[in-house]
Amino acid sequence: MIRFESDYLEGAHPQVLEALVASNLEQHPGYGEDERCETARALIRGLCAAPEAAVHFLVGGTQVNCTVISAALRPHQGVISADSGHIAVHETGAVEHGGHKVLCAPAVNGKLLPEDIARLVDTHWADVTHEHQVQPGMVYISNPTEMGTVYTRAELSALAQVCGRCGLPLYMDGARLGCALVSEECDYDLPFLYQCCDAFTIGGTKLGALFGEALVIRNRELNRDFRYFIKQGGGMLAKGRLLGVQFEALLKDGLYFDIARKENELAMRIRRQLEALGYSFDIVSPTNQQFPILPNTLLEKLGKKYSFSMIAPGTSESCIRFCTGWATREEDVEALLTDLRALS
Amino acid sequence: MIRFESDYLEGAHPQVLEALVASNLEQHPGYGEDERCETARALIRGLCAAPEAAVHFLVGGTQVNCTVISAALRPHQGVISADSGHIAVHETGAVEHGGHKVLCAPAVNGKLLPEDIARLVDTHWADVTHEHQVQPGMVYISNPTEMGTVYTRAELSALAQVCGRCGLPLYMDGARLGCALVSEECDYDLPFLYQCCDAFTIGGTKLGALFGEALVIRNRELNRDFRYFIKQGGGMLAKGRLLGVQFEALLKDGLYFDIARKENELAMRIRRQLEALGYSFDIVSPTNQQFPILPNTLLEKLGKKYSFSMIAPGTSESCIRFCTGWATREEDVEALLTDLRALS
Amino acid sequence: MIRFESDYLEGAHPQVLEALVASNLEQHPGYGEDERCETARALIRGLCAAPEAAVHFLVGGTQVNCTVISAALRPHQGVISADSGHIAVHETGAVEHGGHKVLCAPAVNGKLLPEDIARLVDTHWADVTHEHQVQPGMVYISNPTEMGTVYTRAELSALAQVCGRCGLPLYMDGARLGCALVSEECDYDLPFLYQCCDAFTIGGTKLGALFGEALVIRNRELNRDFRYFIKQGGGMLAKGRLLGVQFEALLKDGLYFDIARKENELAMRIRRQLEALGYSFDIVSPTNQQFPILPNTLLEKLGKKYSFSMIAPGTSESCIRFCTGWATREEDVEALLTDLRALS
Amino acid sequence: MIRFESDYLEGAHPQVLEALVASNLEQHPGYGEDERCETARALIRGLCAAPEAAVHFLVGGTQVNCTVISAALRPHQGVISADSGHIAVHETGAVEHGGHKVLCAPAVNGKLLPEDIARLVDTHWADVTHEHQVQPGMVYISNPTEMGTVYTRAELSALAQVCGRCGLPLYMDGARLGCALVSEECDYDLPFLYQCCDAFTIGGTKLGALFGEALVIRNRELNRDFRYFIKQGGGMLAKGRLLGVQFEALLKDGLYFDIARKENELAMRIRRQLEALGYSFDIVSPTNQQFPILPNTLLEKLGKKYSFSMIAPGTSESCIRFCTGWATREEDVEALLTDLRALS
Repeated sequence: MIRFESDYLEGAHPQVLEALVASNLEQHPGYGEDERCETARALIRGLCAAPEAAVHFLVGGTQVNCTVISAALRPHQGVISADSGHIAVHETGAVEHGGHKVLCAPAVNGKLLPEDIARLVDTHWADVTHEHQVQPGMVYISNPTEMGTVYTRAELSALAQVCGRCGLPLYMDGARLGCALVSEECDYDLPFLYQCCDAFTIGGTKLGALFGEALVIRNRELNRDFRYFIKQGGGMLAKGRLLGVQFEALLKDGLYFDIARKENELAMRIRRQLEALGYSFDIVSPTNQQFPILPNTLLEKLGKKYSFSMIAPGTSESCIRFCTGWATREEDVEALLTDLRALS
Repeated sequence: MIRFESDYLEGAHPQVLEALVASNLEQHPGYGEDERCETARALIRGLCAAPEAAVHFLVGGTQVNCTVISAALRPHQGVISADSGHIAVHETGAVEHGGHKVLCAPAVNGKLLPEDIARLVDTHWADVTHEHQVQPGMVYISNPTEMGTVYTRAELSALAQVCGRCGLPLYMDGARLGCALVSEECDYDLPFLYQCCDAFTIGGTKLGALFGEALVIRNRELNRDFRYFIKQGGGMLAKGRLLGVQFEALLKDGLYFDIARKENELAMRIRRQLEALGYSFDIVSPTNQQFPILPNTLLEKLGKKYSFSMIAPGTSESCIRFCTGWATREEDVEALLTDLRALS
Repeated sequence: MIRFESDYLEGAHPQVLEALVASNLEQHPGYGEDERCETARALIRGLCAAPEAAVHFLVGGTQVNCTVISAALRPHQGVISADSGHIAVHETGAVEHGGHKVLCAPAVNGKLLPEDIARLVDTHWADVTHEHQVQPGMVYISNPTEMGTVYTRAELSALAQVCGRCGLPLYMDGARLGCALVSEECDYDLPFLYQCCDAFTIGGTKLGALFGEALVIRNRELNRDFRYFIKQGGGMLAKGRLLGVQFEALLKDGLYFDIARKENELAMRIRRQLEALGYSFDIVSPTNQQFPILPNTLLEKLGKKYSFSMIAPGTSESCIRFCTGWATREEDVEALLTDLRALS
Repeated sequence: MIRFESDYLEGAHPQVLEALVASNLEQHPGYGEDERCETARALIRGLCAAPEAAVHFLVGGTQVNCTVISAALRPHQGVISADSGHIAVHETGAVEHGGHKVLCAPAVNGKLLPEDIARLVDTHWADVTHEHQVQPGMVYISNPTEMGTVYTRAELSALAQVCGRCGLPLYMDGARLGCALVSEECDYDLPFLYQCCDAFTIGGTKLGALFGEALVIRNRELNRDFRYFIKQGGGMLAKGRLLGVQFEALLKDGLYFDIARKENELAMRIRRQLEALGYSFDIVSPTNQQFPILPNTLLEKLGKKYSFSMIAPGTSESCIRFCTGWATREEDVEALLTDLRALS
C-alpha cells in the first residue's frame, strides 16, 4: 500500500532525528527552560525579525489552540472561526470543554472573511440584549486552511484591520504553516505574519518533526502568565528540550522550508495530472493537501494500491484527499500519476 | 406607553400573590424539601398521570436548562438544538461555560426536525474520526418554540422516536408551555408530553408566577443525584417554598391554563387584525408571541404609544414581536387594534 | 414544633411583601434594568457614600459568589478562603465547576487571617515551580463568618492591606451582613466596607426578603461586562424588579437594620441564658447564629419541641446551632429559655 | 555540574532511541491506531495477565491524570487525594479547570489512608445537607508517592477494599511505577495492581522514554468512549506510533525494570551514605527520590558541584531531593558520596 492519507505517517526527518540522537545525553532542566529551547526561540525571533517575541513550545495542535484560547478569553467571550475551522469541528469540543463557544462564520474557500467578523461583532453590539449572547472575544484562522488554501497578504491585512478595529486578538493556527509560506500564492513572510497576528503557530508535526508546535506571541497581555496555561492544559513537556532540539534542526538552515517546498511540489504534480485528466476539485489548493472529486469506480480501483482520506462520499463520485509529507517518495507519486492516467 | 414587549412586565397573577401572602408566616425547611413543594409536586404528577415522576423547582430558565444539560451529558457530548434555540443564542454561552457544545440544526418554523437529529447522529458515527468530534448526547427543543410555534403530536412522536433509536434523552424547555398546550394547534396533553420527553419544564415566570420553572423528569438515570446539580448550578432557592406555593396556586384549579388561554386569545386578536390588514408574518404563531412584518413608517407611529420588540430591522419594513401576558388588558389590545386600523 | 434551625423558615417581612403587592401591576422592563432596581441602587450608593458604585441584584448566594469569582479570576488563578468558607464546603463545588480552585487557609474563629493570605501568596511566588501551581487570584471572606463571628475594623483593614500589597481583589460575602453591621462587635459602617472591599454583598434572603442579594462593586475592572456574567451564571431574573422592590423596602427606612437588630437581640438572649447555665460554645458569636455545645440528653428532650441544626455530633455532647430570623417570635425564645432552665 | 535535580534531565535510553530510529520510516496511521501501539498494548496486557485490559498511550502525566478524572466523574463529584498528591499541588489546578474539586486527606508518609477515604465518604453521606457538598467520586493515589514511598500489598488491598465498599473507582498514577515495582518494599506485581485498581499508569518519561504514559483501564464503564476524552484533553498524539515504539522497547525484554533497578540502586547508595553520616530524612524512600535534611552550610558547598531540588528551605538545615535517572552515572554518584564524606 502506498499511502497518501495524511502528512504524519512517518517519524521525523533524518536531520531532526539526528539532532535528537546527538543531543540525547545532554543534561537539561525540564519544562522548556533549557538552552536548546532558548536557541530555538532565538532562531524564531530572528526569522520573525522580532527580538521581543514570546515563543513557547507545545506538543500538539489541539493543545496549543485550547491553551491560547483559554489565555485570551474571559468566560463570557467566544472565538470567531470559519465553520470549517479545526477548533469548530475536529477537536472533540475542547474549546467548549474549556468554557467557550466557537462563533462560526461560513468558510469561503476555507477562509474566514473580514466582513463576517465585522458582521458578527457589529450585530452583537447592536443588539440591545447583547448581554444575553456570547461576546466575540478573539479570532481564529488556520493558514493553510483546512482545505489547503492560503491567505494572501491583502486578505490577512484586512483580517488584522478588522480585528484591530474590533479589539479582537487574531490567532493563526499554522499547523502546516511552512506549506503556506512557500506556496506559489504566498506574497508575505514571517515578519509580516508576526506583525499581522497577535499570536500564531509554526507547526512541526506535519513538517518533519516527531511532534511539536512553536507558538509565537506578539500580544504582551495574551502572554501574561502564559506558562501557567501551558501547564494547566497538560502541554508542559517534562523533557522540553525535545521541542527545542527539533525546532533548532528544522529552522537553523531552512530545512523546514525545504520540506514544505517538497511537500507542495509533489502535491502540485498530483494536482496538475488530475487537472489534465479533467477532474474537478472541491477547492483548488496550492499546498500539500489536494481535494479532487473522483468517480467512485476509479476510487475503488485506486484504493487497492493507494490510501487516501474520504472527505465527502457521494453516490457516483466522491471528494477525497491526497496528502504529501516530508517522507513522500517521488517514485510513489509517479506511480500514482501513471495509474491515474491508466485508470481514467 | 402601552406595553407589548414581553410577557414578564408585571409581577404575579393576583391568586398567586395571594397564596404567597397567605402562606408567608408558615415555617418550612429550606431548599425545596417542604410540604408546599410536595403538594405542588403531587399536583404535577397528577396532571402528568405519572405518580413516579421526579419534580424539581428552579428559579429561572437559563438555570434549569444548564442544570439539566450538565446532568445529562458526559464531557465529550453535546446537545442538539435548533439554531434558533434559546440555549444556542440567548444564554450567553451558559451551556459552553458548563463545558458542552450546542450542535445546531437549521430551525424550520422554529422547530427542530427529526431528520436533522438523525443526520447529525448518523454522520457522527459514520465518520471514522468521530472521536475527534463532539458526540451528540441529548436533544433540546422548546415548545412553544422561540418563534411561538407549537409542535404537533406527530412531530413530537417523531422526535421521541428518533431520540429513542439514537439513545438520546429528549428535553423540552417549556418556558411558555401553557400557551402551547391550550393553543388551537395542540393535539396532546401533559401525560403525552411526559411519555414523549425524558424531561421537560412547566414555565411559571411567563404564565402568572413571580418566577419559577417546574422541571419534570421521567428518565431515572438523568434524575440521579439531581439535587446536587441544582445546588451546584446556583438554582437551589433557600426559601424553596415560594416555588411550591406558586405552582400550587397555578395548578390546583387550572389557573395556569386559564392564563395561557387569555394570553393566546388576546394574541390571536392581534394576529387576525394584522392579517385582515394584509400584513405578513415572519412565522405564523398560534401562541402569545406574534411576529408581524410591518412598514417602518407604521412602526414609528405605533412606537409613540406602544412598546414592542424589534426582531429584524429592515430598511423599509421590519419584523417585530407583540407579546401578551397574564396582565395584558383587553382594552389595551383593542386600542392597539383601533390604531392599527387607523394607521394602515 | 418551634423552629430555630435556620433564618429562612418564613417568607418576607410584611413591609417587603406589601411593597411587592403594591407594585405588582407596575410594568417594568426585565432583567434588572427597571426604575425600581435603579431606586434601590441609588439607596445602596447613598448608604455606601459611593455615588460611583456598581450595584447588581442576584437571586441567591451561591450564584452571586460564583459569578463574582468567575468575573474576577483568570483560569490559572484560585480564590483564597478560610477552610470553613461557604464556597469551600457548602456550594457543591460550584467554584470548581466554574474552573477554579479554592485555596484554603485554616479558619480562626471562622475568620481568615491576613498572615495566611501573605503566606499563601509569598510561598507561591517563592517557589521556582510556581507555574505548576494555582496562582492566588482573589480573596473571599464572609461577614458574619460561617460561625457568626464579625470582623473588626482593624481586621478588615489588615485584610485589605495585604490584599492591596498582593494585588488581590477582596470580596466579602455578606449573606447576613446586616447582623454584622448592627452587632456589638462592629466598629465600622457601609462606607468603610465599600472602601475596604473590591466587592461585597448585602444579603436579603436571611434578613427579611423573599430572596435576593445586592452586590456592590467598587473595582471597575471587576465590573467590566459584569451583566454578561450574571446572565451566563443563570442569575439574571426576568422580573428583575422584584429584587429592586424588595431592597428598596428593606433599605429606604432602615428596615434591614431593624430586622438585623431584632435577630441579634433574640440570639443574645439565648446566648446569655446558655452562658448563665454554664454551657460552653464552639465559638462565641455576637450575631443571629449561636453554636452551643450541649449534652445529648438535653438535646433529645429539646428536640421534641424545638428544631435546631446539628453541627458536630458527639457521643455525650454535641455542637448545635440556634438561629433567629426576621420572624422569630419573642415568646418562642422565652419558651426556649424557660425550657432550657427547666431541663438543665 | 553533576545533576541530581530530576529524573528527566536526559533524552531516552539508547535502546528506546534506537527503536525510534529503526522504525522512523515505517508508515502508520495516526492517533494510536497503529500496529506498534497494538504490539505495546499486547505486551502490557501480558504483563498484567489481563487479555481484556484497555490500554491507551498519552504524552504526559498531568494530561493523563486529567483525562482519567474527566472520564470518571460526574460534575458534582470530586476526587479524593492525599494533600501531597500531584493533582492537588503540582498541576496548576488542571483538575479544577476540568470542573472538579480535589478532596484532600492528610498524607501519611506520602500515602493516602483507607480510613481517611472511609471518613470522607461516610461524613458526606451522613450529612443531611450532603447535596450542598461535593460528592466523593473516585480515589487518586500515586505509587511511588510524591515522597518516593511505596504502597505495600496490604495497603493497596485495604484501599481497594474501601473503594469497593464505597463504590469509588481507584486510580493509581504510576509516573515512576517501575521504581515502586522493583523496590525492596514491594510485595506485589503488575497482575496484582491490575486487579486492585480500576485504572493505573505505567510511566515512561521518568524511566527511559522520551515521553509517554501507558494507561491501563480495567473498569469498562470508565473506558467507555475513552478516546474522545484523550482527544478533548489534547492528548491524542498525531504520530501515536512513537508511544507504541517506545513502550515496546521498554517492555519487551524487561528494560523498563532494569532501568528502575538501576535508578533505585544508585539512590540507595546515596541514602546509605547519608544514613552512615548520621543525616536524617524527611521521609525514608526506597526508590529513586531521596529527601535528606542537610545543613545549609553543607548544601552551599555541594551546590557548587552538584544540582539538587530544594524541597523545604530552613534557617540552618533544609530538606532537599536527590533524584537518580536512567542516565545517572555510577561515577557521578561515587563522586557525590566522596564529597559528602569529605564535607561532613
